[in-house]
Amino acid sequence: MKIPSKHIENAVDQMASLPGIGRRTALRLVLQLMNRSNEEIAAFSDSFIEMKENIKQCKTCGNVSDKEICSICANPNRNHRLICIVEDIRDVLAIESTETYKGVYHVLGGIISPMDGIGPSDLAIPELIDRVENGDVSEVVFALSATMEGDTTNFFIYKKLKDSDVIISSIARGVAVGSELQYADEVTLSRSLINRQPFSR
Amino acid sequence: MKIPSKHIENAVDQMASLPGIGRRTALRLVLQLMNRSNEEIAAFSDSFIEMKENIKQCKTCGNVSDKEICSICANPNRNHRLICIVEDIRDVLAIESTETYKGVYHVLGGIISPMDGIGPSDLAIPELIDRVENGDVSEVVFALSATMEGDTTNFFIYKKLKDSDVIISSIARGVAVGSELQYADEVTLSRSLINRQPFSR
Repeated sequence: MKIPSKHIENAVDQMASLPGIGRRTALRLVLQLMNRSNEEIAAFSDSFIEMKENIKQCKTCGNVSDKEICSICANPNRNHRLICIVEDIRDVLAIESTETYKGVYHVLGGIISPMDGIGPSDLAIPELIDRVENGDVSEVVFALSATMEGDTTNFFIYKKLKDSDVIISSIARGVAVGSELQYADEVTLSRSLINRQPFSR
Repeated sequence: MKIPSKHIENAVDQMASLPGIGRRTALRLVLQLMNRSNEEIAAFSDSFIEMKENIKQCKTCGNVSDKEICSICANPNRNHRLICIVEDIRDVLAIESTETYKGVYHVLGGIISPMDGIGPSDLAIPELIDRVENGDVSEVVFALSATMEGDTTNFFIYKKLKDSDVIISSIARGVAVGSELQYADEVTLSRSLINRQPFSR
């Protein structure tokens, strides 16, 4: 599709640089933007610049925040001895929206993935080790993706922490609540059998 | 999902204001943007402002352009007596990419849709009538959506133009090239039978 203006072309290129947005979708979005007023477009554009300028990473856990220390780490009612290790901020939001977890987090900023050139030193793993060794931590919970990369990362951190007297756990893997057994994949189903739990009502 | 920062919240709201982008997708896009450098985010944001500032509507056909008259209307090799009526700029791009149409366009900027409060006066219909009555036009081709609104718009324009001696045509509706007959809907199939063409090889 040949776009008749270099200004639109540039805007489409920028929009299509977002993950999961193809050029056809980008064009649709850009043309919709073009129909807005100058003020609306300025508000749209400024929101991203303003976010970049004002957003900070929590010095303790790596979560995003408007302050130096995020609202979760600054909350005295949370259990600061229980740390949940997650890949990125969206995982924090997902767990927070369950309203069942009362500990704190440690955001790695990714997982070990040699294919993408991401090694342990690219992630917030040293900060985690430091936090566990020099802080008052009783348990860390792995909540990374159940992929090869996630398991590698789990194992790498486990090796670093296994000599400290902290409890190391992982979120349960099994058949999802509300889903039918016959549609669960074999690995999930076998894991859910191996990790069976005492029945309780 | 509760977002922990009002700056991110604002950026997500802006991103989710784009058509077809939900809040979950918007969050994913915004977090991806946040990982970029300040310069990259400035380039992203500026592209939309720059587009809005520099883009013009062609005075003749309503197509977008960097100049007062778009490249199609300014092209002396195109047939300026043949006007294709389309809903918006994307339709121009779609037809242009076929490389089979050598006429010019008239972009209405929408179609008559009482449900959305869009009447004939909100569209470039008076400009079209003026163009046909005061210009050297031999044929207009309707290429609007085959919906109730598209048909209403076609009929409205047809009534305005039927007393002038211009030929009024419509793009062919029928079973798509390469698609199987059994999957065509009844309306399309019956239209393709009614509008059957002399066989030619």
